Amino acid sequence: MTSSTEQLPDDHIRATYEDIHVQIAQTAKLIKRQFDPDVMVAISGGGLIPARILRTFLKKPSAHDPNKKRNVPIQAIGLALYEEVAGSSVENMGREVVRTQWLDEGTFGKRSSREDRGEDGDKEEGLLGKRILIVDEVDDSRTTLQYAYQELVKDVKAGLEALEPEARAKLPPTRFAIFVVHNKVKDSGKRGTLPLIPSQSSSSTLEDQPVDSTSGGGAVAEGVWYYPAGETGDVWVDYPWETEDIAEHNRLANLAKKLGVNQVGAGVASR
Amino acid sequence: MTSSTEQLPDDHIRATYEDIHVQIAQTAKLIKRQFDPDVMVAISGGGLIPARILRTFLKKPSAHDPNKKRNVPIQAIGLALYEEVAGSSVENMGREVVRTQWLDEGTFGKRSSREDRGEDGDKEEGLLGKRILIVDEVDDSRTTLQYAYQELVKDVKAGLEALEPEARAKLPPTRFAIFVVHNKVKDSGKRGTLPLIPSQSSSSTLEDQPVDSTSGGGAVAEGVWYYPAGETGDVWVDYPWETEDIAEHNRLANLAKKLGVNQVGAGVASR
Repeated sequence: MTSSTEQLPDDHIRATYEDIHVQIAQTAKLIKRQFDPDVMVAISGGGLIPARILRTFLKKPSAHDPNKKRNVPIQAIGLALYEEVAGSSVENMGREVVRTQWLDEGTFGKRSSREDRGEDGDKEEGLLGKRILIVDEVDDSRTTLQYAYQELVKDVKAGLEALEPEARAKLPPTRFAIFVVHNKVKDSGKRGTLPLIPSQSSSSTLEDQPVDSTSGGGAVAEGVWYYPAGETGDVWVDYPWETEDIAEHNRLANLAKKLGVNQVGAGVASR
Repeated sequence: MTSSTEQLPDDHIRATYEDIHVQIAQTAKLIKRQFDPDVMVAISGGGLIPARILRTFLKKPSAHDPNKKRNVPIQAIGLALYEEVAGSSVENMGREVVRTQWLDEGTFGKRSSREDRGEDGDKEEGLLGKRILIVDEVDDSRTTLQYAYQELVKDVKAGLEALEPEARAKLPPTRFAIFVVHNKVKDSGKRGTLPLIPSQSSSSTLEDQPVDSTSGGGAVAEGVWYYPAGETGDVWVDYPWETEDIAEHNRLANLAKKLGVNQVGAGVASR
């Protein structure tokens, strides 16, 4: 199929499903050791596939049978950059984030309409006092991630404040981390900002993360852990789930590997 | 790697990501022609990956620029069979469905807390008067699918009844369809039941679907269209996103193909 003179049509990075599965598996080891999330929040649509693959590598022991493993629950939120709407100013295109789905109030500790959820279900799915891993596909402008992080922190804080002081004091700090398949490194910087926890060395532990203790327990820990499985330059990344012709996509991905071009840089797991 | 004497370790069906991508692409052609969904409801966790892949093949023309295409929105719901909870009777294990995430009220036409959603966003994401495609991984006992379908119909009907009569009368019928990657055919039948629309021949059209017109518009059409991308016997299906070793998974999947065993039967698109 591929001759030695064959060239790629562009400078896009093309990842196969298998490439991404392996990269997620590698990064999941670090995430499990360092952060060990209780719940994932997948940003739809891009975060859906990475979150489902991650779940395979982040299982926890079952509370009812230590010989079994249970899945880390996935909650989905829908976010889109506001581009398609008539009347939206050109200035705001690609800046404004629109919610297409959000979490229900029970997730933030308030009783809601989910009467049919068991006591245990509530404990497993809620966000208060949990280690929460936000999952997305690509960290490009960082606008969507900034929005997701800020809004989740806001809702978690409101949920904590609504608790009885005794219930709140019993909760461990709520912690946030972000996983993305690819972080696009931009020389000009990113539009969105996040209080990333700087050190990703393997000696970093949750105990080092600053927590505001003046509130007397039940606080949100400062900053957000950051786990990109790979890093790219400011180029297009073609994901396998976006292609209409997966055979051709894989052919070009394998050609790029053979030529040693358009490859993804190491993410945090390999540092 | 594989010698001609090599055997498979079991009778599991193993699909590669590429197998599933191609099967989804084929079935999406039929879905697009016959049902053309306005919105997907993905059942988490299994439905997340199939829904995201489907989205690639179900795009619609942009309302603002006919030369562009826009994505069909994905809403996620979380459903699990009730197994892990202490005090749950043995009798109910695997029968009872637990909601871990549901859609917010705005999706069913009621105003909710999503003030920051634009007018257009609402129109695109809501379920009333829409063609709704429910997406899951495997139709095994059918318990989860029955629950999802019945609960969505109930909430849509309640949302329609809450509308002003004039607003309701303007709405086309709300229609439901189900996509699964695999339908497990069970000789003993399925525990869950669904009012499947029997004919999947390519001449079937939405106009043939019965609609209760006594309500004067804004009704839910009867029955649910059913699109399994493939059919299997009552055996385990190993999905690529569940495997910890994707290379070994693919090796066994390719060996099964070579030996011509443990293969998936044709789904609706090939009939």
